[in-house]
Amino acid sequence: MKALYYAGPNKLGVKHYRKPEIGPGEVLIKVAFTGICGTDMLAYHGGMPKRVKPSVILGHEFSGTIQNVAEGSQFQVGEQVTVEPLLTCGDCPGCKIGEYNLCNRLNLIGIDSDGGMAQYIKVPETKVYRLGPSISLEIGALIEPLAVCVHLLNKGKVSANQKVLIVGGGPIGIITALVARQKGAEVIISEINPFRIRIGMEMGFDVIDPSMQDFQEQINERTNGRGADVSVEATGTNIGLVSCIEGTCVQGTAVIAGLPKKNADFDTYRIIAKELNLVGTRVYKQEDYIEAIELLNHRKIDVTPIISRVVPLDDAIGKGFEAIDSGEDVIKILISIPDEDENQ
Amino acid sequence: MKALYYAGPNKLGVKHYRKPEIGPGEVLIKVAFTGICGTDMLAYHGGMPKRVKPSVILGHEFSGTIQNVAEGSQFQVGEQVTVEPLLTCGDCPGCKIGEYNLCNRLNLIGIDSDGGMAQYIKVPETKVYRLGPSISLEIGALIEPLAVCVHLLNKGKVSANQKVLIVGGGPIGIITALVARQKGAEVIISEINPFRIRIGMEMGFDVIDPSMQDFQEQINERTNGRGADVSVEATGTNIGLVSCIEGTCVQGTAVIAGLPKKNADFDTYRIIAKELNLVGTRVYKQEDYIEAIELLNHRKIDVTPIISRVVPLDDAIGKGFEAIDSGEDVIKILISIPDEDENQ
Repeated sequence: MKALYYAGPNKLGVKHYRKPEIGPGEVLIKVAFTGICGTDMLAYHGGMPKRVKPSVILGHEFSGTIQNVAEGSQFQVGEQVTVEPLLTCGDCPGCKIGEYNLCNRLNLIGIDSDGGMAQYIKVPETKVYRLGPSISLEIGALIEPLAVCVHLLNKGKVSANQKVLIVGGGPIGIITALVARQKGAEVIISEINPFRIRIGMEMGFDVIDPSMQDFQEQINERTNGRGADVSVEATGTNIGLVSCIEGTCVQGTAVIAGLPKKNADFDTYRIIAKELNLVGTRVYKQEDYIEAIELLNHRKIDVTPIISRVVPLDDAIGKGFEAIDSGEDVIKILISIPDEDENQ
Repeated sequence: MKALYYAGPNKLGVKHYRKPEIGPGEVLIKVAFTGICGTDMLAYHGGMPKRVKPSVILGHEFSGTIQNVAEGSQFQVGEQVTVEPLLTCGDCPGCKIGEYNLCNRLNLIGIDSDGGMAQYIKVPETKVYRLGPSISLEIGALIEPLAVCVHLLNKGKVSANQKVLIVGGGPIGIITALVARQKGAEVIISEINPFRIRIGMEMGFDVIDPSMQDFQEQINERTNGRGADVSVEATGTNIGLVSCIEGTCVQGTAVIAGLPKKNADFDTYRIIAKELNLVGTRVYKQEDYIEAIELLNHRKIDVTPIISRVVPLDDAIGKGFEAIDSGEDVIKILISIPDEDENQ
């Protein structure tokens, strides 16, 4: 089968791999669509050398159809599914208290082991979720990032009528905005990229541009001078973190979601002066997948507008990874995985 | 009256001031003892130029006896009291929701306006608390830092049987340890100063010394590899902050109490990986004073061992401020305020 793999810092390739064979408790999935995530970009650029080893197949946001099942499976061949791509140890402090998303030895499929930018993947069937009748395979590939957003908003205890500041209008920022709005929160997005500002606005969000406007003034205007109840850092930058700290109300919560590239650098006294909560959020758990799928099944949110482009696997390096790098106008790029492997 | 004042960076003096005259709703207190706080040290060294103006009388931890009251007062001359030294605006976002400790325009008596290193001070009587019969005037001067510790432990939601790591065995660290132990928590103190280590141990605490021992190993040993449920940063240093982040369990809470001298500098991913809560804590509110006084009235804790030295006002610069600076073996130094002003 064909797959896209990490070939070392700033190098990707597409090559043939042996089609996986399932063991007990596993299912084989014929992959349909796989999203390119910020984490994939970080891996691609060699930013995760301890975890992402050369020749690993990338991709942890994917959908597909069941191709083969083991004896006694709850699934049937042909069912459309997505996967919660976390393999966990069951034995570390996090796992022991059921918080397996915090596993010390977390194996994220597509980062720590072969992922979904491939024609086939085998996974434990406990990690497989059926797409409901109203969820297309394209949308199915967005359930993973949607679960990230569901989880982080629950971490931030976001509820109706709260003001929620989302710093960063990329895939996580925009999907978080959708879910927060669905919860009844009033959403403010802070973003500087003109394309992302436009998409956010087209989706009906109030977007501020701190490169053109005074950030604090804009926040104060929208929150009666209080600051947001909850803010979400979805850029992975220090300026994003500082914006969350400044934009949040006294005793408010700043949820840190964006993967940071550098150490934090902020005036700790600002946390003290407002008695802020800074809370980290990491991936998701089963309940987040269930909530994410329910949101889509009941058509409570529409994530379609964030799919900027669908590119075939063979073009995924240039029109996917490199396009993101060169700052093209995209939010989420999906890779469509070809049905058949012509060369094998 | 005589008073100790801030005379500019690294300069203090003792001089005569006019004895204050009370207005409606105020009481005049003849000060008995005033503690030297880390904040006073920061002010002394010119670290708070926007707030501490030359010639301001320092001191926000004090006890004394009522000397004069306004009409209709709830207090009587001769009562022994302490003061919650916060004057607040009543109009900012914090004040509006009752969180007046987070006042935007907080006036901390002894920092932003004249304080208790003086023979007399006038304060609004709403800020005055009677010392119970089992509280001496010396101990009364420790109620302010005790209220800080009560507040921060409530912020961290510390409860019985939790493991609480306190980074820093100075006055706030040790008093926090006393209160946490009284709540039924298992306390670990991390401290590197040999004198403070000894005092902590003499008070029955488990003290680790990260300059001599492997910090993480020591924490793991005491927490079954989990980390502390709650940690408290009580050093104001970045290494203290990092120690809290590393020493806290998954989904645990790190309470940031120490006033930081520099910007934070830590790997934000550590917050994400463990879904940590970093929460700031700022001074106290009325309920914390009430809880602090109750703890002392019911002799639930004994703060006496932290009083290392009592120095007269005239010697307070050399034997107080400068002694702390030169690293002498002290935890808390109290200034005893003379009864009469011989020169006026």
